[in-house]
Amino acid sequence: MNSENFSISEKIVSPSYIRQGSQARRSHEQLIRLLLEQGKCPEEGWSESTIELFLNELAVMDSNNFLGNCGVGEREGRVASSLVARRHYRLIHGIGRSGDIAAIQPKATGSSLLNKLTNSVVLDILKLSGVRSVTSCFVVPMATGMSLTLCFLTLRHKRPKGRYIIWPRIDQKSCFKAMITAGFEPVVVENILEGDELRTDMEAVERKVQELGAENILCIHSTTSCFAPRVPDRLEELATMSAKYDIPHVVNNAYGVQSSKCMHLIQQGARVGRIDAFVQSLDKNFMVPVGGAIIAGFNESFIQEISRMYPGRASASPSLDVLITLLTLGASGYRKLLAEQKEMYTYLAQELKRLAAAHGERLLHTPHNPISLAMSLDGLQTQSGKSVTQLGSMLFTRQVSGARVVALGNKQMVSGHMFSGFMSHSEAYPHPYLNAASAVGITRDDVTLCIKRLDKCLKSLRKESSFCVTNAICLYRFTLISYPMSV
Amino acid sequence: MNSENFSISEKIVSPSYIRQGSQARRSHEQLIRLLLEQGKCPEEGWSESTIELFLNELAVMDSNNFLGNCGVGEREGRVASSLVARRHYRLIHGIGRSGDIAAIQPKATGSSLLNKLTNSVVLDILKLSGVRSVTSCFVVPMATGMSLTLCFLTLRHKRPKGRYIIWPRIDQKSCFKAMITAGFEPVVVENILEGDELRTDMEAVERKVQELGAENILCIHSTTSCFAPRVPDRLEELATMSAKYDIPHVVNNAYGVQSSKCMHLIQQGARVGRIDAFVQSLDKNFMVPVGGAIIAGFNESFIQEISRMYPGRASASPSLDVLITLLTLGASGYRKLLAEQKEMYTYLAQELKRLAAAHGERLLHTPHNPISLAMSLDGLQTQSGKSVTQLGSMLFTRQVSGARVVALGNKQMVSGHMFSGFMSHSEAYPHPYLNAASAVGITRDDVTLCIKRLDKCLKSLRKESSFCVTNAICLYRFTLISYPMSV
Amino acid sequence: MNSENFSISEKIVSPSYIRQGSQARRSHEQLIRLLLEQGKCPEEGWSESTIELFLNELAVMDSNNFLGNCGVGEREGRVASSLVARRHYRLIHGIGRSGDIAAIQPKATGSSLLNKLTNSVVLDILKLSGVRSVTSCFVVPMATGMSLTLCFLTLRHKRPKGRYIIWPRIDQKSCFKAMITAGFEPVVVENILEGDELRTDMEAVERKVQELGAENILCIHSTTSCFAPRVPDRLEELATMSAKYDIPHVVNNAYGVQSSKCMHLIQQGARVGRIDAFVQSLDKNFMVPVGGAIIAGFNESFIQEISRMYPGRASASPSLDVLITLLTLGASGYRKLLAEQKEMYTYLAQELKRLAAAHGERLLHTPHNPISLAMSLDGLQTQSGKSVTQLGSMLFTRQVSGARVVALGNKQMVSGHMFSGFMSHSEAYPHPYLNAASAVGITRDDVTLCIKRLDKCLKSLRKESSFCVTNAICLYRFTLISYPMSV
Amino acid sequence: MNSENFSISEKIVSPSYIRQGSQARRSHEQLIRLLLEQGKCPEEGWSESTIELFLNELAVMDSNNFLGNCGVGEREGRVASSLVARRHYRLIHGIGRSGDIAAIQPKATGSSLLNKLTNSVVLDILKLSGVRSVTSCFVVPMATGMSLTLCFLTLRHKRPKGRYIIWPRIDQKSCFKAMITAGFEPVVVENILEGDELRTDMEAVERKVQELGAENILCIHSTTSCFAPRVPDRLEELATMSAKYDIPHVVNNAYGVQSSKCMHLIQQGARVGRIDAFVQSLDKNFMVPVGGAIIAGFNESFIQEISRMYPGRASASPSLDVLITLLTLGASGYRKLLAEQKEMYTYLAQELKRLAAAHGERLLHTPHNPISLAMSLDGLQTQSGKSVTQLGSMLFTRQVSGARVVALGNKQMVSGHMFSGFMSHSEAYPHPYLNAASAVGITRDDVTLCIKRLDKCLKSLRKESSFCVTNAICLYRFTLISYPMSV
Repeated sequence: MNSENFSISEKIVSPSYIRQGSQARRSHEQLIRLLLEQGKCPEEGWSESTIELFLNELAVMDSNNFLGNCGVGEREGRVASSLVARRHYRLIHGIGRSGDIAAIQPKATGSSLLNKLTNSVVLDILKLSGVRSVTSCFVVPMATGMSLTLCFLTLRHKRPKGRYIIWPRIDQKSCFKAMITAGFEPVVVENILEGDELRTDMEAVERKVQELGAENILCIHSTTSCFAPRVPDRLEELATMSAKYDIPHVVNNAYGVQSSKCMHLIQQGARVGRIDAFVQSLDKNFMVPVGGAIIAGFNESFIQEISRMYPGRASASPSLDVLITLLTLGASGYRKLLAEQKEMYTYLAQELKRLAAAHGERLLHTPHNPISLAMSLDGLQTQSGKSVTQLGSMLFTRQVSGARVVALGNKQMVSGHMFSGFMSHSEAYPHPYLNAASAVGITRDDVTLCIKRLDKCLKSLRKESSFCVTNAICLYRFTLISYPMSV
Repeated sequence: MNSENFSISEKIVSPSYIRQGSQARRSHEQLIRLLLEQGKCPEEGWSESTIELFLNELAVMDSNNFLGNCGVGEREGRVASSLVARRHYRLIHGIGRSGDIAAIQPKATGSSLLNKLTNSVVLDILKLSGVRSVTSCFVVPMATGMSLTLCFLTLRHKRPKGRYIIWPRIDQKSCFKAMITAGFEPVVVENILEGDELRTDMEAVERKVQELGAENILCIHSTTSCFAPRVPDRLEELATMSAKYDIPHVVNNAYGVQSSKCMHLIQQGARVGRIDAFVQSLDKNFMVPVGGAIIAGFNESFIQEISRMYPGRASASPSLDVLITLLTLGASGYRKLLAEQKEMYTYLAQELKRLAAAHGERLLHTPHNPISLAMSLDGLQTQSGKSVTQLGSMLFTRQVSGARVVALGNKQMVSGHMFSGFMSHSEAYPHPYLNAASAVGITRDDVTLCIKRLDKCLKSLRKESSFCVTNAICLYRFTLISYPMSV
Repeated sequence: MNSENFSISEKIVSPSYIRQGSQARRSHEQLIRLLLEQGKCPEEGWSESTIELFLNELAVMDSNNFLGNCGVGEREGRVASSLVARRHYRLIHGIGRSGDIAAIQPKATGSSLLNKLTNSVVLDILKLSGVRSVTSCFVVPMATGMSLTLCFLTLRHKRPKGRYIIWPRIDQKSCFKAMITAGFEPVVVENILEGDELRTDMEAVERKVQELGAENILCIHSTTSCFAPRVPDRLEELATMSAKYDIPHVVNNAYGVQSSKCMHLIQQGARVGRIDAFVQSLDKNFMVPVGGAIIAGFNESFIQEISRMYPGRASASPSLDVLITLLTLGASGYRKLLAEQKEMYTYLAQELKRLAAAHGERLLHTPHNPISLAMSLDGLQTQSGKSVTQLGSMLFTRQVSGARVVALGNKQMVSGHMFSGFMSHSEAYPHPYLNAASAVGITRDDVTLCIKRLDKCLKSLRKESSFCVTNAICLYRFTLISYPMSV
Repeated sequence: MNSENFSISEKIVSPSYIRQGSQARRSHEQLIRLLLEQGKCPEEGWSESTIELFLNELAVMDSNNFLGNCGVGEREGRVASSLVARRHYRLIHGIGRSGDIAAIQPKATGSSLLNKLTNSVVLDILKLSGVRSVTSCFVVPMATGMSLTLCFLTLRHKRPKGRYIIWPRIDQKSCFKAMITAGFEPVVVENILEGDELRTDMEAVERKVQELGAENILCIHSTTSCFAPRVPDRLEELATMSAKYDIPHVVNNAYGVQSSKCMHLIQQGARVGRIDAFVQSLDKNFMVPVGGAIIAGFNESFIQEISRMYPGRASASPSLDVLITLLTLGASGYRKLLAEQKEMYTYLAQELKRLAAAHGERLLHTPHNPISLAMSLDGLQTQSGKSVTQLGSMLFTRQVSGARVVALGNKQMVSGHMFSGFMSHSEAYPHPYLNAASAVGITRDDVTLCIKRLDKCLKSLRKESSFCVTNAICLYRFTLISYPMSV
């Protein structure tokens, strides 16, 4: 209520109480003021009531909520279902304009503010998480893969001769398809084995660059977050090479914001060499629904070019989710989540190690990977060819989600390219293994339950192979057929 | 509740009442059964309670809502904010898999069902709206423009030599950028003036095809819904030419689902010639928030190819919105909206005609455009160069949204291409004019208020030019500067 | 947002757009200002967004939502469940203080405003509905019956010798129990039959007054809304008699606000005689959930005395519901509902008349009852003793709710008093009958469906009695046992 | 979804996933089954999604949500505002019937189940909290005071000669008014001072009983929870005396459920003597909005008699709130809250002691009061008559809510009875003091902040009295006038 309405209220309820109520309101306004002024994630999280007050205020500024508006356009923010209107806080106009996904919409001042603030708050969080020199970013309502595609498409206009993308292998379909969809030819560089870890083969990368000719290479496409035993790419060296050969460098940082190691790699890469853009998922880093990504970089005008490549207005839903979430958590809340991720990583590693020992396996030594862990499954491989995949479906039916088993010798064709040893990031990794990850938001219960169920499954599989195949197991095998491995 | 729980309840509340309650539940289940069985939009809309019951049921099937789930993956559908969880009905996993936006997710059975059903219900509505022979479609959480880009990127793999896109001119930035972003060269074909209407110049199109060589042309990119005095492209003839020269044909049907004329053109085009895909906006046709589109076509495998081009999982938010909306409206509700759109078109036309006459202008005769109308502003053009644009900003400050004024002689560079007479779809349209559209969801009040305010503005502008420039008007001019024309 | 925050926003989004957004906000504030200033139901209903904005503003003023509050009392508005907090818009402190349900709470300025405004808006609606001279009222979160009890308890302090309450018979349990619970002795005055109507026997009332002695009578307790063939009491005459003998007069106006006739009776009664208080239900008149009533009267200090009798704070939930509802409807919306009630009454009467004729029955002639209608069931009575009640259970299983069948000869003991002919308001009404009511909110579909199903039931009952008792019918009889008649 | 719908879904999404989804649903059903079967608070709290699923299931069983219902009654659960419908989960029919607030409604099976389950779950929690032998209870949507009134009104019918209520003094208005409103004469028995504590004067009670005659006494009305330095009444002795003289005994246990001491007193009282009913607030014990109470007892038929005294249907809102809350918390969650209350009590006591010492005051020694504490304010009393009350308003403006200052010598007339030393439960308590309570839900921050602010206020008051009265202080005095003491 404005001051006039507070004055009138003093005639209804005693002035001293109204004064206190109006003061209380001011303390919410004060939080909003700080956000508008600084464009940063507030240190302490906001209460739900401040957040909803703020979102209502934004909605009121959009023309579809004007009390006296009449609309004679083809896109007026009309909503047929009140369920839908409510779940979007009546912010209907999306973000951006036909020319630029980061642009301001005259019809939707509130949504425009939302968009600007989200990008600004997210930038602040990227800095806080370790990429201190990032200068620009924007949220885009597309998957990480499609966002990478958008980056590649933008680069095409700057490098008309670029046909190839140099890509240290990582066995995840969407980043591979991101290049295919954009119309480029991925040049897969196999990783090299160092101890248990799979790491970037820098020599092979340089060889490819020289072989194909720098000007024919659209960019280098590197990766931070990945499943063990692969570890983040050698970003500093790749960035240095990018600078040396004047080749753009795009980093797939899918779920790397949650890890100070991944963020540090990017920060260092940009300091010593060249990183044009780095792309990260919203859902995996900020615990929001699937569907958004952040495209960030160190050169504001290049990031803006990318934002101008998105033709049309876009869904504000992922922006709204991440803004609500970051305002709820506050910077301190997010830091706390990151600290817990680290703590749980240590706990998970220790428990897996213990379990592996008990079953004659071992936790692969992959200290460069700050999120994902792998435990060998050599025992299952020797006993029966199917036991490894069977373990996967057993875990699935026992509601252990996200655990991923990798057998030896998979081959898979992805968009015309044959991957040997698919899922293992390597043509011939020496062990079959199981992955488990300590990602942001994981709880102690998740780890404990997973270890317990995994233990039971391993015992049951060993018993089975010693004695006979029971009916129950046949069932697992059956469900296996319909259970794809690349969950 | 299941039958066991109903039985137990009979010990608490009288059996005959519980029986009636359980019957009542069955009638909701029955509606859900029909939807699952037929995959069609229900004839009568569902109540909010049925819809929410259904969405809760879907959510319960997603692993993030399993009561005993433990997650050790990097993407587990965790949500930090309960505000966010609630607004998505706890459906967090998005849609699709890394390989295919239409694929089923093992971790998210409920979300997968949602996705499949939405695509199926939307297909039903496309048929109902006039494209009876459409065979396949999917909802994609991207703007119409970006969805067109995805179509073009898919075609690249089928037509590696295709460099050009033949495009009968329409002055709307995102469809132009859709081609640029995809990395192709738009070949702009100017429209021809027939009476007041701007129509496809078929001869010019054929000339271009022959000049560039069919194999070098990626596709023809035509448009249905557009601002008057441009009218929908001659789809039958373009489709026939596509077939004749074996060139793919993609139709931008942005807000054409709401118009039986536009849909009929597509149906006819596909019948007599070739249409590979047609793309439409969710928000403009179904009164949902901005951010989604439908990619549809007549060849299931091609549409599937497009869906497989999207790298990564995607936001389920636009799918959820359109499903809720269509279940709320029912087929009969949607048909009613379409009927009202037609009725309001007639009303708007009649009122604009009356107003135009009163101000010495006329309603341009554009019978082929079923949504948008244009009224000449010749009087303003002659009096003062600025009056036309001034009218735009006056309407903006008076909360008339969507009315669009087009002055003569605009030039604008869009992604490196210079458009003369920008906004008018023509290098030299003979009149400045004002657009108003009768789009789905428009009300009688919208029309009446718009006409009233427009009348006042026109009177005030005439008075101004006759007498003197008042302070108030200076203010309008001032705001004008910050008010871009292409709202 | 306050003006400071708008100013800051101008640095983020263009000033002219922010100005428009801030203007839009002012139009909501303006509506709130009018409400605060006038305390009247707005003529036009508010949008959901204005309502929620307003409720959020109120909540912010309550101490449980103060950002810096620390609570060390025993009642601090803490909420354990966020589901609960949200559904009450975080207004947790209820209404009133230990001394007075209408009093202001220092800890809860927002809730206090809500309470005051609700009472004020409701008073306005009572005037609008016909009791123009009402001066005071308050919403109490209790049933109509319990609210009547509170009135009687208040009167006790003014009339210590009062033991009896004169009560023209109406067969509805709670108003009878209201007197018993308050500790008084109801003096039941039988109605007299005029045509088909049951009306107040004024002579009998006066006889009782003289017999018992005015000073021993706590009050006269009359009724407006009731089931036909009883009609509203002769309020003018009762009020006149109250004045003459100086006996308080309390009117049970349960669902009478929706009827201009009932309201007119109260207005007239107060004008020519004495009415101390009239009590009405919230749910039946305003389409809100069950649980609240309005106690109103013409003497502000007496109504205040009643409000001071409620010991303790009370639930704000019914007040919140009725305020939201009246702000949503607006005065015009409520008037429209009243007009529809009248229209549906006529429609229902006509359809019942037609149906009755077809089945050899007749619509009882009860023109003084503006809501409830009765159709004779003489045919069923003669054929079989059970057919009348059987019809009730048949309608119940066919989801016709609210239709009420009244057989001849029921006897029932209520709180120690034996009622002959119970449910018919009369010891010996000449016909069994069926009641149907056209209450506020009824739709044409309700009437049409009811008539259709009723027709089927009547046909089926006739067939049954002609031929034989089928199994299906046995089932109805069985359910009948557990189906009480006084739904 | 029922099994049929799951089967159909298997044609849309792979059968093994659907099976898992359907299993997941069963685990929610299983929780609901346990609740229905046992009628107990679940040990572990439910997730929001289980709760909402359950509430939706209940709503579906109410006739207002039947898809094919037609209503022709005067009370059909119609709702005009969708905001209102949603906030009540579409449970509109309230609880109870005209004859009995605990009865089942034929029209509202879901609401009836809700009502029965709530009463059953609440009964379980009363047992868990210490009154193990309680046999019956019901939730009533009225304040504790009004609920006491209902108990007294019920007793009137059993003890027609009862005129007096024996009441050990407690200075809280609503419990006093509860007796007045019911029409009885409270017989105030002054407390006796034992150390710092004010305790029941058993001799005075017995004297009164003998003086007035047991048959003229309606009941003894005792109190557990209260502000220090008063402590809970000697329930065992009062109960024994009730039994001895055959006088009913009603206990005001307002916020005593949260304290094992208060609950133990009731349990013991009932074991050794007579307690007819004990009444407790919902909001103060269960952290729900103000407005409900629980009436409980050891004799099922007497509790049922009370429930049958409520004339009319009643609001389900308080029942819904407490059910949601207890399902959310689970028994373990509630026990945890109780443990925290105890812990915070110790912390608050220790901090107040420290603070008191620093200011030359002391924490009054009141070990029998498990919730409320009192710190002397002797220093403020001697320096200036107004300092004590001034402290109250200073705390108010500093957002310390619930702290209560009690000066010496207040006199107040309540409903015709003059209380000397009002607010101190005693005609001449030797110290002015400040109360602070550690009630359920209090946090460590509440205590810390309160102590800090209190410290500042005390310092500022001392400084003021030493030097001079500043303007700021005048302001406090001014606000004081409008700030009533009995917050």
